[in-house]
Amino acid sequence: MLALSDEVQRALTGGRLAHLTTINPDGSPQMSVVWIGLEDGDIVIGHLMGGRKVENIRRDPRVALSVEAEGANPVGMRNYLVAYGRARLVPGGAPELLQRLARVYLGPDVTFPPMDDPPRGHVIHVTLERLAGVGPWAP
Amino acid sequence: MLALSDEVQRALTGGRLAHLTTINPDGSPQMSVVWIGLEDGDIVIGHLMGGRKVENIRRDPRVALSVEAEGANPVGMRNYLVAYGRARLVPGGAPELLQRLARVYLGPDVTFPPMDDPPRGHVIHVTLERLAGVGPWAP
Repeated sequence: MLALSDEVQRALTGGRLAHLTTINPDGSPQMSVVWIGLEDGDIVIGHLMGGRKVENIRRDPRVALSVEAEGANPVGMRNYLVAYGRARLVPGGAPELLQRLARVYLGPDVTFPPMDDPPRGHVIHVTLERLAGVGPWAP
Repeated sequence: MLALSDEVQRALTGGRLAHLTTINPDGSPQMSVVWIGLEDGDIVIGHLMGGRKVENIRRDPRVALSVEAEGANPVGMRNYLVAYGRARLVPGGAPELLQRLARVYLGPDVTFPPMDDPPRGHVIHVTLERLAGVGPWAP
């Protein structure tokens, strides 16, 4: 498991949207924007329904996530973090994770998901293998 | 060529960073964050040096870009646009494009790139094939 510095942990838990890439059956990229949290060093993503990214991860676990971050390099280009890793699907737990993340992304008093008896969904766990980008975590 | 609505054009030229995915030789995703502009309906990206994404595009032109956008859906999830397309490399012209984009991304009076006699680089042109995401452009 990759050791995550305080700066990396802050970048991944600060309420910035994460741009998630999975790989389609034909080898092309599939992207979506997701809320993320950290759990035991993994990035976690709650997903209520099935869908393309869940199917893709089931077939090919290689994913990448990028988040914009505080600060900039000397010529003004904004810092960002890219996290490469392997994803696995853990059934259930999506509503609880989304409720926790909604407090970060939407506000402390939000109830989420906004429905009675939401589907249990999946939590996508991403075990990180490599970091890249621009910022204190750059290789 | 995909017709781009005013809303899509605004999302792609508003100075939001674009998260670009290319495909590595082993089929895994490679991501970076870039400045983008529009030129004759293509997304354009200036790249001064070689590097992983240029090599990847030379081998496999399938790319995806995502940008966060104004507005949110009814439950508060931020709008975003994903643009899928095919990239091609046009040699030269990177300093001029970067100077134009720096006025959008950094400020109207910036001189960019901040060096004498920058390399001519490449302009990556992405011809769009499909849009996705959350917002008025969602399928």
